[in-house]
Amino acid sequence: MKLTPDARGVFPIAPTPFFDDGAIDFASIDRLADFYAACGSAGVTVLGQLGEAAKLEHSESVEVATRMIRRMAGRPVVVGVSAPGFAAMRALTQEVMDAGAAGVMIAPPNTLRTDDQIVGYYRQAAEAIGADVPFVIQDYPLTFSVQMTPGVIRRIVTELASCAMLKHEDWPGLEKIAQLREWEREGVMRHISILCGNGGLFLDYEMERGADGANTGYCFPDMLCDVVRLSAAGQREAAHDRFDAHLPLLRYEQQPGVGLAVRKHVLMRRGLLASSAQRKPAAAISKTALAEVEHLLGRLAKHDARAQLPARR
Amino acid sequence: MKLTPDARGVFPIAPTPFFDDGAIDFASIDRLADFYAACGSAGVTVLGQLGEAAKLEHSESVEVATRMIRRMAGRPVVVGVSAPGFAAMRALTQEVMDAGAAGVMIAPPNTLRTDDQIVGYYRQAAEAIGADVPFVIQDYPLTFSVQMTPGVIRRIVTELASCAMLKHEDWPGLEKIAQLREWEREGVMRHISILCGNGGLFLDYEMERGADGANTGYCFPDMLCDVVRLSAAGQREAAHDRFDAHLPLLRYEQQPGVGLAVRKHVLMRRGLLASSAQRKPAAAISKTALAEVEHLLGRLAKHDARAQLPARR
Amino acid sequence: MKLTPDARGVFPIAPTPFFDDGAIDFASIDRLADFYAACGSAGVTVLGQLGEAAKLEHSESVEVATRMIRRMAGRPVVVGVSAPGFAAMRALTQEVMDAGAAGVMIAPPNTLRTDDQIVGYYRQAAEAIGADVPFVIQDYPLTFSVQMTPGVIRRIVTELASCAMLKHEDWPGLEKIAQLREWEREGVMRHISILCGNGGLFLDYEMERGADGANTGYCFPDMLCDVVRLSAAGQREAAHDRFDAHLPLLRYEQQPGVGLAVRKHVLMRRGLLASSAQRKPAAAISKTALAEVEHLLGRLAKHDARAQLPARR
Amino acid sequence: MKLTPDARGVFPIAPTPFFDDGAIDFASIDRLADFYAACGSAGVTVLGQLGEAAKLEHSESVEVATRMIRRMAGRPVVVGVSAPGFAAMRALTQEVMDAGAAGVMIAPPNTLRTDDQIVGYYRQAAEAIGADVPFVIQDYPLTFSVQMTPGVIRRIVTELASCAMLKHEDWPGLEKIAQLREWEREGVMRHISILCGNGGLFLDYEMERGADGANTGYCFPDMLCDVVRLSAAGQREAAHDRFDAHLPLLRYEQQPGVGLAVRKHVLMRRGLLASSAQRKPAAAISKTALAEVEHLLGRLAKHDARAQLPARR
Repeated sequence: MKLTPDARGVFPIAPTPFFDDGAIDFASIDRLADFYAACGSAGVTVLGQLGEAAKLEHSESVEVATRMIRRMAGRPVVVGVSAPGFAAMRALTQEVMDAGAAGVMIAPPNTLRTDDQIVGYYRQAAEAIGADVPFVIQDYPLTFSVQMTPGVIRRIVTELASCAMLKHEDWPGLEKIAQLREWEREGVMRHISILCGNGGLFLDYEMERGADGANTGYCFPDMLCDVVRLSAAGQREAAHDRFDAHLPLLRYEQQPGVGLAVRKHVLMRRGLLASSAQRKPAAAISKTALAEVEHLLGRLAKHDARAQLPARR
Repeated sequence: MKLTPDARGVFPIAPTPFFDDGAIDFASIDRLADFYAACGSAGVTVLGQLGEAAKLEHSESVEVATRMIRRMAGRPVVVGVSAPGFAAMRALTQEVMDAGAAGVMIAPPNTLRTDDQIVGYYRQAAEAIGADVPFVIQDYPLTFSVQMTPGVIRRIVTELASCAMLKHEDWPGLEKIAQLREWEREGVMRHISILCGNGGLFLDYEMERGADGANTGYCFPDMLCDVVRLSAAGQREAAHDRFDAHLPLLRYEQQPGVGLAVRKHVLMRRGLLASSAQRKPAAAISKTALAEVEHLLGRLAKHDARAQLPARR
Repeated sequence: MKLTPDARGVFPIAPTPFFDDGAIDFASIDRLADFYAACGSAGVTVLGQLGEAAKLEHSESVEVATRMIRRMAGRPVVVGVSAPGFAAMRALTQEVMDAGAAGVMIAPPNTLRTDDQIVGYYRQAAEAIGADVPFVIQDYPLTFSVQMTPGVIRRIVTELASCAMLKHEDWPGLEKIAQLREWEREGVMRHISILCGNGGLFLDYEMERGADGANTGYCFPDMLCDVVRLSAAGQREAAHDRFDAHLPLLRYEQQPGVGLAVRKHVLMRRGLLASSAQRKPAAAISKTALAEVEHLLGRLAKHDARAQLPARR
Repeated sequence: MKLTPDARGVFPIAPTPFFDDGAIDFASIDRLADFYAACGSAGVTVLGQLGEAAKLEHSESVEVATRMIRRMAGRPVVVGVSAPGFAAMRALTQEVMDAGAAGVMIAPPNTLRTDDQIVGYYRQAAEAIGADVPFVIQDYPLTFSVQMTPGVIRRIVTELASCAMLKHEDWPGLEKIAQLREWEREGVMRHISILCGNGGLFLDYEMERGADGANTGYCFPDMLCDVVRLSAAGQREAAHDRFDAHLPLLRYEQQPGVGLAVRKHVLMRRGLLASSAQRKPAAAISKTALAEVEHLLGRLAKHDARAQLPARR
């Protein structure tokens, strides 16, 4: 089952679970998969920016992806294959597609500047992985320093039939979504799926602007599912109420470097990860920061019972 | 009256008010000053990054600063004097200090990379403006691409007696505040004022980490004053409640480029600016975005009566 | 007399002469002007990147430009007016054009990324300075981090009739010149003058690719005039011989930061500047480096008598 | 035999030879090795920035390194192991060290900014590869956007005993070499080998400043050997004469992107590579550029008989 431009809903970005000694914790991958399915995720993305993909050896990457694919049992799994060269990208893509992945996600190298360079890069990448492999454009200027105008995205979508989805995390990005959807309505660009990243910081209004869902790793993917569902059902204020209750924590998780530590910590607190360990290099998290997270969870619990967690060990 | 390292409270970053034709609206400067004073601001900063300083001619910059200084009637006014060269920086500094400014704010040029380059730049800048002029370090890596470690800030503070304040807007930055305050407690760094920027996105926890207040332009500076006051008074949950109610709008205002348009629009809606006009180049704001801002104000008004504004003209 | 798209030959980039105390040395401006004219320069550019423009106050910039305009007595003088905002750019442009400048040079701010941002910036700049003011695009990615494709330059040239010249200093850039000239031949782009910068490092082949001349500050502008003249006259090997003899020194002068010190030192050694002083901040030059420059001059003198200079004071 | 801080001479940066279909051409690796040895190279570096390392799969990288190690028969081979994560870096290091490599070269990721980040990165990298593996710091700000002060290099050298060499390609860099050597003389920094990159553009004076040799890929490594030998022997003018004769071509080869195509073309013309093919993505080289290279070779041949090549096929 391959990723299509009609994909909708939430594709959580899965962290890669490690034990404290750095070994991969496959049982936690299973728990994450079961949890994602249970809360209504449409699919999942592994080995993204926050999946610590660069810290895995090639064979480990394949194992992590394969484990998630099996456990998701038919729900589409997208695999991040961004690499400094096309040889490694092609090799990883072939193995995970053979293992049943639905598609791959490709981030631009941060040396790209001009419109032509960006389009040219995706053209070469699509050729390298094969025209039959659906791919996701990762548009994340804050991290990659690559700025894609709506026009550049349209060029990629128009030229490359295997482009199925935009992982939208431009900032600001509301007008970008609006522009792409307007071009679709005008018939000058074919439809693609637009799922939103950026930790979900603007998900409430992104859904109203035409996004199809979320594709991010916030530690309450169940909230993301709620907001996407409520928004799609036209329950605007309910969607905002749910979103706003989580915004203080979500904002806290958005801190570069620290964010992943917060995310893994909360997922551990929720019983989904056995450990919050990251492989090196990893940003440390201070005791004060952990106390702040507990404080945020305590305040959130007044609005969302899922944040009522057993006391820390 | 000069800025001192003991400054505390809120120094709003004032926008520069323009009429629709681009002329400076001095009456709105007066209104802003009166409003800042009325809601308990300790001082104000003009000609900052979002004060459209680069769009003013030299004489206009002096006029804007002078007007604010007069109307603030004794409360300290800090003036942004960042410039591509020290000649222009020195010239503006001398004129605004003669006019009664309390100090100046200096951002690093985005070409600085190494620790020594950063310290060297502030050394030369402090010499250029004169050792008797208190200055504020603007630490805003997201915009300036210059990363200052706590150690670099300590070097500047230790070497340059005229450094009075840090406008802290690193991201993440909570641990940076904690580190600087720890050094103060250990006696290895003298005390300076730390006021927080970044639109206030982390003000709630920044106050708990040791910040002295806020130095940012969020369109409800009265909320910033509330949070700083409540936090300083030890009313932790009340401070967070007030902050969280504003977070959805505050987060919306944090969008690069669009943010200033939102800020000026809300200040106009609040009756403080005659127009939301910016000088060119300016990011446009769409009708949909304006409707989103109204929606956010409507939701905020349920928690904070100050957001209950008369219907748009 | 205004700059036109038919400009050819050498427009040296003039340094701004200072005395050791930092005061502007107007007599040296006169000497430079006389020297430029005597060696066959077509015009001159002042207040460029290496003219220490950012270290001058506004009134000083006008004075430097005015002095050069008067002394060049009818030869076109282009003035760098790059500024962080359009207000300052407009103000300087009006004053120097009133004083008789032939046109202005505008560098892009280093925040521009996408094609549309670059074209949009020049559109706004051209509007700000007035449609009757000829302007030069400065295309210098190594310093400004802004990458302009040939297509972007064509868009600017086509849209903005007042664009008269490209100061070409992309690296690599030979194919860019070739592409632009091909478009001219195909009739899909109007002709503009292309003068080459980058210290002249590729001037030999740039001329063969279709450049109209040089627009750079190498300390032997007379050599640049020789190469442009010989190349235009079809004396290929003679042009290369002359160029190659200077390449070791020219290469040495190309070092970022240090280069200007070398340039001013050699111009002082040639009797054109009274002092090699720069205003702060300035890269220091070591005794060893000065000895290396003397060594280079000594070796050059075997091929070019103009490098036989009286012993250092 | 492991790399030591006493290494001297020329370590050419070897290109990775490909056939036109993209397959690795191992016979050309052998020819390169024999040639490097014959012209007096002290060692060789493979899988550097211009070795197209990012375009190889892991197993290919090991094969290329192993082939060169065997053929170099005892001369030290350094292997570039820069990678986005430490897992891949460690894996490649272990395999090539097992195969007989003398050490590894590590470039900093282009996200590093502060002094502490740079030192911290090398600390973690050295731990990841193992304290018994000699490593080379690659200091190349123009490509990596990471600026290392002399002080940062001293910190790395002092803290990490396995640091054996600096591949120096800062620009400008003459004073950096001088500073490091001064610290050695003062006894405040231990000696390391400093070999120079940057295509060799400043090799003549770098040797005089205290460099131990060259570590770059210019298409006439035999010239690099000449210059290093003559300079070490105190034949200053002869070294410069030899260098200056090559400077026009060397400068031409220094063009980013185009340079590797020029380099592989000349190595093919010299009979060392079977093909000048690069794996994708590769910068194209135009017919005009190829003709310019032939022109440069023709002019060079008047000074250096090694540039007298049989006519192109």
